[in-house]
Amino acid sequence: MMRARNKPWADDFIQDNNHIVELDPFKYKGDWSSLFGNEHPIHLEIGTGKGQFITGMAKQYPAINFIGIEVVKSIIVSAVQNVADTDQSNVRLINEDAKDLREIFQQNEVDTIYLNFSDPWPKNKHEKRRLTYKKFLEQYKHILKENGEIILKTDNQGFFEYSLASFSQYGIILDEVTLDLHAQEDPTNIMTEYEEKFSNKGQPIYRCKAHFA
Amino acid sequence: MMRARNKPWADDFIQDNNHIVELDPFKYKGDWSSLFGNEHPIHLEIGTGKGQFITGMAKQYPAINFIGIEVVKSIIVSAVQNVADTDQSNVRLINEDAKDLREIFQQNEVDTIYLNFSDPWPKNKHEKRRLTYKKFLEQYKHILKENGEIILKTDNQGFFEYSLASFSQYGIILDEVTLDLHAQEDPTNIMTEYEEKFSNKGQPIYRCKAHFA
Repeated sequence: MMRARNKPWADDFIQDNNHIVELDPFKYKGDWSSLFGNEHPIHLEIGTGKGQFITGMAKQYPAINFIGIEVVKSIIVSAVQNVADTDQSNVRLINEDAKDLREIFQQNEVDTIYLNFSDPWPKNKHEKRRLTYKKFLEQYKHILKENGEIILKTDNQGFFEYSLASFSQYGIILDEVTLDLHAQEDPTNIMTEYEEKFSNKGQPIYRCKAHFA
Repeated sequence: MMRARNKPWADDFIQDNNHIVELDPFKYKGDWSSLFGNEHPIHLEIGTGKGQFITGMAKQYPAINFIGIEVVKSIIVSAVQNVADTDQSNVRLINEDAKDLREIFQQNEVDTIYLNFSDPWPKNKHEKRRLTYKKFLEQYKHILKENGEIILKTDNQGFFEYSLASFSQYGIILDEVTLDLHAQEDPTNIMTEYEEKFSNKGQPIYRCKAHFA
């Protein structure tokens, strides 16, 4: 979650870009493919921020449909602008606090879930808010296709440690664990805004790819 | 695995300390408790090195029986000396290349297995030699009691990444993942020789606690 100044024009801007931001996402439950007009795989980013990752991915993978959810209105407007600038038709954004993704996506509707630099909620008493807490894993399991992937990136050591154990204890299989993503110099890795910032400071970026057993 | 000068006196030294080094460990399969003379839990360290960890643990936990396996004769003599110096009766050492632990331990005979700073075998073609390769996990599963623990420590990033994924893919549950053990300043953590050396250089020490599902 990022802080940002209040942007009173945000409502109008989002309204004007309702070809990018889906204003009533609940009605597309089970029907996202028809919105995109094709049967391409659907990849979901939870916490899209300013949209650098999702627009980069959409350009790199034109045969994948990307949906980004971001709760903070003053942040998502930057993502909307980003998508508008790149003119990609395979991206949609959702400005909701996705408390239960099962209200937006049907069972098996999603191929891949990205958790990028999620709020680590470091205090134990806030464990239930972490996006890798079992309550959320239950949702991911429901909306993901069989063998669908979760791909998590973070710079936060405690959140990564927690997430690996939480995944494992929920019956998620770790396909790949990377403790220094940028040492690999993978040209297909699309950076988020956070990732660029922290990586430039020399901090390691952690990544995990996983699927439900 | 450490390098060490050849020590021609090692055979005699081990023979003289056969109350510490069990010269024929295969005959104790299923019967290690009788060797210790009590029913205390049995903890097994694979790759005991010079014995700093196992002697420290034995002092800290007198109601646990510790068995350390080390293949390199010129190294295990230091562990023998260490055990002799501390005069702990709850430690036995084994100088074998433990290719199949099921020849030395019966099913469910071991409570905890420690993998401390195992050889990382970084080349892909040597994957089968890593002590967290599935061939070895199969052995650990056999000799460990139900809910018995594996506790792995290493300074090697690649080996740690590999081991987490290998554990997970074999159906092992990760109870705890720690990416910087020494930041916790856990007073019960007993350091191995390697751990002390690498930690003093400022390198992070990784630890994972896990059990078979």
